Amino acid sequence: MGPGKTATSQDTRLAFELGQRIGKENWILLSGGMNEGVMEAVNRGAHEAGGLTLGVLPGIDEKNASPCLDISVKTGMGSGRNNINILSSDLVIVIGMSAGTASEASLAVKNAKHLVFLSPEHETKAFFEKMGLERVHFSSTPAETVVLAKKILLSLG
Amino acid sequence: MGPGKTATSQDTRLAFELGQRIGKENWILLSGGMNEGVMEAVNRGAHEAGGLTLGVLPGIDEKNASPCLDISVKTGMGSGRNNINILSSDLVIVIGMSAGTASEASLAVKNAKHLVFLSPEHETKAFFEKMGLERVHFSSTPAETVVLAKKILLSLG
Amino acid sequence: MGPGKTATSQDTRLAFELGQRIGKENWILLSGGMNEGVMEAVNRGAHEAGGLTLGVLPGIDEKNASPCLDISVKTGMGSGRNNINILSSDLVIVIGMSAGTASEASLAVKNAKHLVFLSPEHETKAFFEKMGLERVHFSSTPAETVVLAKKILLSLG
Amino acid sequence: MGPGKTATSQDTRLAFELGQRIGKENWILLSGGMNEGVMEAVNRGAHEAGGLTLGVLPGIDEKNASPCLDISVKTGMGSGRNNINILSSDLVIVIGMSAGTASEASLAVKNAKHLVFLSPEHETKAFFEKMGLERVHFSSTPAETVVLAKKILLSLG
Repeated sequence: MGPGKTATSQDTRLAFELGQRIGKENWILLSGGMNEGVMEAVNRGAHEAGGLTLGVLPGIDEKNASPCLDISVKTGMGSGRNNINILSSDLVIVIGMSAGTASEASLAVKNAKHLVFLSPEHETKAFFEKMGLERVHFSSTPAETVVLAKKILLSLG
Repeated sequence: MGPGKTATSQDTRLAFELGQRIGKENWILLSGGMNEGVMEAVNRGAHEAGGLTLGVLPGIDEKNASPCLDISVKTGMGSGRNNINILSSDLVIVIGMSAGTASEASLAVKNAKHLVFLSPEHETKAFFEKMGLERVHFSSTPAETVVLAKKILLSLG
Repeated sequence: MGPGKTATSQDTRLAFELGQRIGKENWILLSGGMNEGVMEAVNRGAHEAGGLTLGVLPGIDEKNASPCLDISVKTGMGSGRNNINILSSDLVIVIGMSAGTASEASLAVKNAKHLVFLSPEHETKAFFEKMGLERVHFSSTPAETVVLAKKILLSLG
Repeated sequence: MGPGKTATSQDTRLAFELGQRIGKENWILLSGGMNEGVMEAVNRGAHEAGGLTLGVLPGIDEKNASPCLDISVKTGMGSGRNNINILSSDLVIVIGMSAGTASEASLAVKNAKHLVFLSPEHETKAFFEKMGLERVHFSSTPAETVVLAKKILLSLG
């Protein structure tokens, strides 16, 4: 999960590399599916690495969807679909921050999902660290994120 | 789309065969994903034939989900997820009838999706024929359904 | 519940009178809230009779909403909001028929709500009679509908 | 908007007083509707002051709903209903903090709603101040919140 239009160039760089690593692990990449920012970059990375990509779209069709999606679910619910993204994920990884991303990270805590922030800013770390307790994790690089994700998924059985 | 617990043995027989044919066509099979009735049978058929199966589940987890799903989306919305099933489908095929199925067939007409009823009962045919106009179709066998589906998908471009 | 744009003049006449009667009973009128067809007429009737009107809207704002709504809930979910309409109703009354209306009537049966069809066409009656069993009722006039509704609500306690 | 079970005694004290003031203003109080924490307190305050209270519930019935609700909308969507709460509000006021509350505050920013935090903690202020720009406001008391809300609503026309 991560910002669309407001993503920084570091966000998209990290997202692309994370996508590549997720694709190589043969994990299914679930994202908000839009053709911008972190969503675009992570899907492109996973797609190029041969991974399976699933987009849960806010609209009723594929308008503005990433062309790298293998499967798309059209919810027609706008940001109401954010809860579906979270419920459908075994593990949530956050790159960058925006209002939509913050709602997804919050819903991850609410729904008791494990949540990894990759290279978060100070305010994000302070806010979610306080709220999320033992299910909120932090990482510095895509490689470290995948190692951490494996450890968490293993612990979930 | 089709009934769960209240499916007849003919419904599940048709659904299993249709699933096999969908799997062989390499189409993605989207269903409500539950482990009962038409949903169970069609997913089993597609899975055995090597197809990709996607379940859009009513719950927040995979409880009572078909074990033949390759991918599951957990909506936590109960029957509210039926609109997502329809929006996400290129074409909707209905086998059997129940209240949930009727809501999906109605939402297909509402959302201007093409809709094929495979071997419907008289009352179903009369009701949807009147409502649905040129996007409502009828077929007698799984084989005929796939031929019809190809023709419709071709016409959609 | 009833059609918007495709409502007949008889549909809207019945809806207006039913709205008046609901307003006089001091029941809360819940509808899809749009400014057209049955929704417009029933809200106008209830509003003029001093009743409280609640609209559960498909959009994210009040565009095209009935001006007779006292309260509006904006779902941003399109037809996905139909399930909320049903879940939030103690009793569902249907006037006329359309794809959206059919989905609501079907969801009413699915969610085990009592459902009254006011002056339905033959095909509607035949289809829902078969599906709905003891919770599906039929009436001929708004006055009769209110009497029937009272009896049902009383039986629900 | 505010936490349920995890609300502090200061949260519920502020919520009760704010509810009273909202009731006296004859504004419609929209909340998540549950019978706990900030939701319980704010509805009780508004109800006692003669205001109209609307609860948008996560469940399919009124189980665990505040007894002070005049109207309830049952979404059956769990936390998916949080986006509806926000879309349906002219102005969002937040007391206390929890994961669900954070998702609502984030969705308020996402949906371009004005948002007032009443007596927030340091981390909350820092996080949302950065994200929300000119639509994020802060207040110290219920009285000040109502004055600020009036000013904002006036500016919205």
